Amino acid sequence: MERAFIFDVFGTCVDWRESVAAAVRVALPEVDPHDFADAWRAEYDPAMARIRAGDRGYVPLEVLHLENLDRVAARLGVSVSDRDGLNAVWTQLAPWPDVVPGLLALRAHGLIAPCSNGSIAMMTRLARFGGLPWDTVVGADLARDYKPRPEVYLASARAFGLAPGAVTMVAAHNGDLEAARDAGLGTAFVPRLTEHGPGQATDLAPSADWDIVAEDFTDLARKAAP
Amino acid sequence: MERAFIFDVFGTCVDWRESVAAAVRVALPEVDPHDFADAWRAEYDPAMARIRAGDRGYVPLEVLHLENLDRVAARLGVSVSDRDGLNAVWTQLAPWPDVVPGLLALRAHGLIAPCSNGSIAMMTRLARFGGLPWDTVVGADLARDYKPRPEVYLASARAFGLAPGAVTMVAAHNGDLEAARDAGLGTAFVPRLTEHGPGQATDLAPSADWDIVAEDFTDLARKAAP
Repeated sequence: MERAFIFDVFGTCVDWRESVAAAVRVALPEVDPHDFADAWRAEYDPAMARIRAGDRGYVPLEVLHLENLDRVAARLGVSVSDRDGLNAVWTQLAPWPDVVPGLLALRAHGLIAPCSNGSIAMMTRLARFGGLPWDTVVGADLARDYKPRPEVYLASARAFGLAPGAVTMVAAHNGDLEAARDAGLGTAFVPRLTEHGPGQATDLAPSADWDIVAEDFTDLARKAAP
Repeated sequence: MERAFIFDVFGTCVDWRESVAAAVRVALPEVDPHDFADAWRAEYDPAMARIRAGDRGYVPLEVLHLENLDRVAARLGVSVSDRDGLNAVWTQLAPWPDVVPGLLALRAHGLIAPCSNGSIAMMTRLARFGGLPWDTVVGADLARDYKPRPEVYLASARAFGLAPGAVTMVAAHNGDLEAARDAGLGTAFVPRLTEHGPGQATDLAPSADWDIVAEDFTDLARKAAP
């Protein structure tokens, strides 16, 4: 049976917090870089929520990130001299060390693509930066909506010409997998215990009997073998 | 300036006629394989025309190809035992020999993606088959319409977060480039003098002053350097 594996990216494939903090340390030496990264990221879900609810038309995530940067900077009373430059850090996030070897191994078992809330513009640049060997990009831009709305998962499966059950969603976030399962997709959990830093309290373990639970992407490639 | 290069695929990147004929030779030994390939391909544009005109909702190209296969087989009075198997030949087309090295060189100058009337499902499998190193797939599926409708070119540029003028359409077909230029994109012509076989009478030379005219994809990579 032909299969595809689609991936959450921020947190699951890349360590956004450390990469964003490193860029903030350079751009805004006066703030705590991790606090700033956390505050910026905290604006992410509320910004998407308005679009999911239909209160705002779809705009790609880089637009939301820039608005959110302005909001956080204003709140902290700091001025960002190169807003677009700092915003571009979201396309320059380091992959976790197991990601590239794991994806290269997993390619033998099916098509692979990010199914992220990041846009095609962001995902292609991020793939170049980190050497992520995707076959294409699916996700929010294709559906013109944001996860966890079911259409994002369904449009991604449809793009591959596959039934939802032939597509496995891979994520470090139980909520993403719940939505994918509700949409009929297979599910794979890979924990990322330090995504939110040393004190992380969420998504430390699988919350349900996901189809695959793997230690990392290399383990995922092994467990996904037919 | 950040740039992207987007590509016509059938004819420009791959030799559809010889690959389809080779598959027909095996599946339908009773017909002339090149005549059958030509007849199948001749149904392509009329099938898309109904969708471009709004007389039919968007369906991906593999659906049209299968309908067209049935139509041609019925007309010739032959029976195809594995219709889906033969239809899958459109994801197993040999790249022209300069394509993979040319794309690998061109990647240094910008993002690269197919902007084909083929679907994401077709383009990802075709890329796997031929080793085409795309960053992602844009084109018909993204716009839910078919070239040469302007929205296909514009949606593809937008997906990269680029203005149309920062994106170059590469094609062996002057008509494709005319539409891309009308939509504001840059243009590059690469002739494929045997796409339609030894007696080819169309697209033997550029019909306008395209931004780039290259001998092949390696020459294109040289001429596209900043």
